[in-house]
Amino acid sequence: MTRLARLTTDEAADAVTASPLAIIPVGALEQHGGGMALSTDTVRADGVADLVATLLDGKAVVAPAIPYGVSPHHLAFAGTLTLSPTTFRTVVRELVDSLYRHGWRHVLVITGHGGNNAALSVLAQELLTELPDLRFAWTPITEIVPDVIAGMAVSEIHGHAGEAETAQMLHLAPELVYAERLEPGVTGRDDLNSAGRLARTKRGPRLAIGFEQYHERGVLGDPRTATAANGRLLIETAAQRIADFSAELLNT
Amino acid sequence: MTRLARLTTDEAADAVTASPLAIIPVGALEQHGGGMALSTDTVRADGVADLVATLLDGKAVVAPAIPYGVSPHHLAFAGTLTLSPTTFRTVVRELVDSLYRHGWRHVLVITGHGGNNAALSVLAQELLTELPDLRFAWTPITEIVPDVIAGMAVSEIHGHAGEAETAQMLHLAPELVYAERLEPGVTGRDDLNSAGRLARTKRGPRLAIGFEQYHERGVLGDPRTATAANGRLLIETAAQRIADFSAELLNT
Amino acid sequence: MTRLARLTTDEAADAVTASPLAIIPVGALEQHGGGMALSTDTVRADGVADLVATLLDGKAVVAPAIPYGVSPHHLAFAGTLTLSPTTFRTVVRELVDSLYRHGWRHVLVITGHGGNNAALSVLAQELLTELPDLRFAWTPITEIVPDVIAGMAVSEIHGHAGEAETAQMLHLAPELVYAERLEPGVTGRDDLNSAGRLARTKRGPRLAIGFEQYHERGVLGDPRTATAANGRLLIETAAQRIADFSAELLNT
Amino acid sequence: MTRLARLTTDEAADAVTASPLAIIPVGALEQHGGGMALSTDTVRADGVADLVATLLDGKAVVAPAIPYGVSPHHLAFAGTLTLSPTTFRTVVRELVDSLYRHGWRHVLVITGHGGNNAALSVLAQELLTELPDLRFAWTPITEIVPDVIAGMAVSEIHGHAGEAETAQMLHLAPELVYAERLEPGVTGRDDLNSAGRLARTKRGPRLAIGFEQYHERGVLGDPRTATAANGRLLIETAAQRIADFSAELLNT
Amino acid sequence: MTRLARLTTDEAADAVTASPLAIIPVGALEQHGGGMALSTDTVRADGVADLVATLLDGKAVVAPAIPYGVSPHHLAFAGTLTLSPTTFRTVVRELVDSLYRHGWRHVLVITGHGGNNAALSVLAQELLTELPDLRFAWTPITEIVPDVIAGMAVSEIHGHAGEAETAQMLHLAPELVYAERLEPGVTGRDDLNSAGRLARTKRGPRLAIGFEQYHERGVLGDPRTATAANGRLLIETAAQRIADFSAELLNT
Amino acid sequence: MTRLARLTTDEAADAVTASPLAIIPVGALEQHGGGMALSTDTVRADGVADLVATLLDGKAVVAPAIPYGVSPHHLAFAGTLTLSPTTFRTVVRELVDSLYRHGWRHVLVITGHGGNNAALSVLAQELLTELPDLRFAWTPITEIVPDVIAGMAVSEIHGHAGEAETAQMLHLAPELVYAERLEPGVTGRDDLNSAGRLARTKRGPRLAIGFEQYHERGVLGDPRTATAANGRLLIETAAQRIADFSAELLNT
Repeated sequence: MTRLARLTTDEAADAVTASPLAIIPVGALEQHGGGMALSTDTVRADGVADLVATLLDGKAVVAPAIPYGVSPHHLAFAGTLTLSPTTFRTVVRELVDSLYRHGWRHVLVITGHGGNNAALSVLAQELLTELPDLRFAWTPITEIVPDVIAGMAVSEIHGHAGEAETAQMLHLAPELVYAERLEPGVTGRDDLNSAGRLARTKRGPRLAIGFEQYHERGVLGDPRTATAANGRLLIETAAQRIADFSAELLNT
Repeated sequence: MTRLARLTTDEAADAVTASPLAIIPVGALEQHGGGMALSTDTVRADGVADLVATLLDGKAVVAPAIPYGVSPHHLAFAGTLTLSPTTFRTVVRELVDSLYRHGWRHVLVITGHGGNNAALSVLAQELLTELPDLRFAWTPITEIVPDVIAGMAVSEIHGHAGEAETAQMLHLAPELVYAERLEPGVTGRDDLNSAGRLARTKRGPRLAIGFEQYHERGVLGDPRTATAANGRLLIETAAQRIADFSAELLNT
Repeated sequence: MTRLARLTTDEAADAVTASPLAIIPVGALEQHGGGMALSTDTVRADGVADLVATLLDGKAVVAPAIPYGVSPHHLAFAGTLTLSPTTFRTVVRELVDSLYRHGWRHVLVITGHGGNNAALSVLAQELLTELPDLRFAWTPITEIVPDVIAGMAVSEIHGHAGEAETAQMLHLAPELVYAERLEPGVTGRDDLNSAGRLARTKRGPRLAIGFEQYHERGVLGDPRTATAANGRLLIETAAQRIADFSAELLNT
Repeated sequence: MTRLARLTTDEAADAVTASPLAIIPVGALEQHGGGMALSTDTVRADGVADLVATLLDGKAVVAPAIPYGVSPHHLAFAGTLTLSPTTFRTVVRELVDSLYRHGWRHVLVITGHGGNNAALSVLAQELLTELPDLRFAWTPITEIVPDVIAGMAVSEIHGHAGEAETAQMLHLAPELVYAERLEPGVTGRDDLNSAGRLARTKRGPRLAIGFEQYHERGVLGDPRTATAANGRLLIETAAQRIADFSAELLNT
Repeated sequence: MTRLARLTTDEAADAVTASPLAIIPVGALEQHGGGMALSTDTVRADGVADLVATLLDGKAVVAPAIPYGVSPHHLAFAGTLTLSPTTFRTVVRELVDSLYRHGWRHVLVITGHGGNNAALSVLAQELLTELPDLRFAWTPITEIVPDVIAGMAVSEIHGHAGEAETAQMLHLAPELVYAERLEPGVTGRDDLNSAGRLARTKRGPRLAIGFEQYHERGVLGDPRTATAANGRLLIETAAQRIADFSAELLNT
Repeated sequence: MTRLARLTTDEAADAVTASPLAIIPVGALEQHGGGMALSTDTVRADGVADLVATLLDGKAVVAPAIPYGVSPHHLAFAGTLTLSPTTFRTVVRELVDSLYRHGWRHVLVITGHGGNNAALSVLAQELLTELPDLRFAWTPITEIVPDVIAGMAVSEIHGHAGEAETAQMLHLAPELVYAERLEPGVTGRDDLNSAGRLARTKRGPRLAIGFEQYHERGVLGDPRTATAANGRLLIETAAQRIADFSAELLNT
């Protein structure tokens, strides 16, 4: 049993040594177009966390997912609830402090939402000096399997609520994909406005924009082409890479 | 459909007017003795929130539960993860701010954990001047049905992980009650040490102590006497009172 | 001599061991209707603190009262000056830290103002882990003598600037009660508007409202019926209960 | 009547226009040698504030004195309770915000403790941009009457708990001067150690040191030579200068 | 003239319209091995900023470089001074706020230090909602010219204080490269310990480690092979890409 | 070599013992009238720091100057970029913490800008208890040579961007003085408005005002009369006094 939420305190006490890696899934509650649920990123983080724990064969426990993330870029769309980067980071930090207090020395955060990345990077920097004997790692999901995506048919522009995220949801939680309402967002570079193109620059400066500036529906790519099979491949490949990494991390 | 997590952004946009009350369940991840899961308080908050929303017949949406709360008094027991009161309050505040931005003007927090009460009270004070046109209410569960508890057979000392909480879990999530491992905690006033007695003073000063000072297992009462029937009565009575309150709140 | 303000540093050094309980009275500067002074809550906290110290017969010192509290709900009325809950809590915390540094290990805060309660509760939670060998207790005044109030003739709705507070002031500082200007506020539940009734719900959610929503003068109850004799009984009973509690607290 | 603490809310409402200057006295609770009370600085600030208000003939109200200040340099001596500079500044800021909300546009802080100066200077800088239509001034007491002190017989080294402060207390609150216990501190530059000399450099860098580094009793000067007559002259001269300044400030 | 530091206030007033892009270079003060100065990252940021401004032909002003950055991962090495990510972000934020107040609506931060990236990303997220009509972009230097580096001879492992950074310094400030003291750090993946390998994972989780864990001298790559010609190519290519981006940014 | 920016980490390691005083120059980026550069205060702080280090003959290292300071009172003039007092103080604090970590125990801040004084005073107070074995001193420049200024011909009102500052710049960086554009500001007390006069009160309360209230150009005094010779005398005298102080400080 790997879900901390289901353990008693006695089982948790055992887990500190039996399951030395604590995984915290973090997601978001934000728009994912007209055809997917607001909880998409949390569902995916949770799903990958479960699979990683399974692959690690008891060496990991999974804490309850944080169902809110850093989503200011989606606030133009109803239903998006956001934490500030500072608050999000502090929440994760205090969970880490609690885990540390009980004896855990290896913590892995799995984020289903790219908006959480910067805050997690900052946290990792802070922990270097503040808890120097802790190993703290974090990982996105889709970003670590670009080779798998390259093997799928995706639009020139793809990403948020697009082919890869929808595929993952079709595999993990098809009941949260409302297929008949899926609709394409911006799919080609030429369809972007100037700010949108700059924000997607590969070899150049970074620009953050609200997703309503990319497309009136805030979707990047065409979710209608997503398949559960691709989703399974994405999820399983990501989970395997994370599990392999984690197994080695436990040796450091 | 009342779960914000399952809605699309378009459905959320509709909900602002159709379901003008936003409910945020908040819980804790903390020890509940040898026989109940760490997530007990979150499960109960979530369960009551669902029932309240049902009773309100579409007038409310339920946001994802915050699965961590303010639990410094349980840190002596493994598996308890705590947020500071300030961080917990800020998380709820930022969710309120996001809901407000989308148009909600009535927010209700349902807490399954008494440790969250003070932070929620402080938040309510802050919102009075900072969002003066918002109606913000919050509620505990067990504390609002003392008459129901008085009608049950409970120990002289009862409370955390005791008869009432266990009963609620037997009704809502019996799979998280490990019946064979339930064990009594402190049950009589005479069994308390001096600090414990002071902390349970009725007409006098307030004293907060770590729950290990009440009892080595941190349990107040005897969970073995809990029944699902009592749990149902507690939950349904609490939910009805909250729903009635909420219906009137929407008129203010 | 129990007033820290009047001691020299040498006397304070002696007091750490001779008077191991440090009492901090906290009040407010806020409207108390047309007939009582803005400092009402501070005066009452200070008065009870003095009496408690006397009853403890040298075992306690009384620090200078904090004359401002958490009063956002009274800001609609001129003269109310408020601290934020966070600032108020931090002030008390830093006084506790200073007392701790000099050697005190038992601190009691007496608040004459209910608006300070939540912040003090949060502080008590924080101190559990941050100063684990400190005993920190806090107490309201009127709230711990409900049985005495039940024996007085009070309105159906009573509370802020009403019968009990006025009575206490008539006993402690009659020169700050301007008797000819005392006037009734809201006295019956039926006179409350919807929000007011919800905010006074006993078995249900908590709602904080500005006191101008209760009554245009912000008064709950009828202060004209207050008597100094009742005030004396309220003050002396509260002080005795606090002193008894404190004496036992010093043994923990 | 100039004391806000004694006013009702109705009188406070009148005072906004009738008494457009709000004065906040701030002090400290800190060691003042073996012969003076810990509250010395608060008593002096309060006393000067009263006199200034009288000289202004109704144009000013005096808020309750903040009885704690910024005193880290006296923490080596028992009884000193300190606020951090940030907390002290925030308290004053929130009082200013409350006064501003009620309509006051001129605020004067009178500090009896030099340790508060830096925090007040910082606050003045912040208010320039944050409340640009407020006039915020602050003033020390002894520092603005160097010419009066020059006319008294004082030690080569004098200052904290020395001739001038003791004289002021003999005038304002002789019951808090325990004359038989007054004792000299460091009185000559040659008696200072190297750090002490540097900290008293006139034309050079600033160095803050704990007062136990100046003298084992933390006293600068010889309080035994203080007289109530000198104290009266110091207080009255300071108050007159502050009142003159304030009268002109009300015209800006 | 593009250096804000050299302008008068009148020239700055003109620059708001004539030079609508404000560039803030940010660096670090941190170890760069035995052969390069602590200011390496600031020097490179400043150098690129100047070149970008020149390429933009008057459309940009360059603010003074912030000579300190986020460097906790280099604190094991003497001379490294670090800001926390929060402080660094706040400094940049307040400069942005000041620029915004004067009328600038396009701000670009050029960072010579990768440790600043996460804080800048967080800032970009915050500005989305807090200054929605501002265009805020930021850019690293070496990271945007991976194709140029691929054309140079670099070690398998290269990066901090390695070939590319040293080359840039040989071009921009050869007097700060002490050639005779340049020495190789870790150059091959097989020379890394387990933590070092994990921290350099490409398709997997992110792990931050202190640079002393990579190599006892904290150097990645072999700086001895660096050439000024390569440095010039890196700098000029990066500057051109940033200038092109900026020119387009000014149209959004 | 005394500039930390130019040292390698190995040289910095040596400097901890060889050069036990760490100097941090701090300035501002703010208006200095029509004839001087925005960086005036930073240039002067840096120049004095260099000279002090030279006079100390290797006993000091100079960290990179912080080119921004606390300048809210100059925000009415274009080009002024300000940090809040809290942010400025935190930056210096974190540099001090880093220096402390490497072994430095004597830190001196030289500020070319009076607006930084209050924040530095607050920092000095905080360090007393938080880093009690550190010697932290700070110094202004012009303020410590009033006797030299008294020997120059200056206007009745002089100060910001006036005779003394301009003279210093003519000595240190004449290329940043645009002589033909120098113009007088307010020069006589009678030319001040009421607020200006109050803000320049010697024996009375302190009032901070925006510099546009002193004079439409924000200049105090007549910079046209400044000479490089006077500037040299001011700089050298100040540096000598700081060096003498520092030499003694190293013995404490």
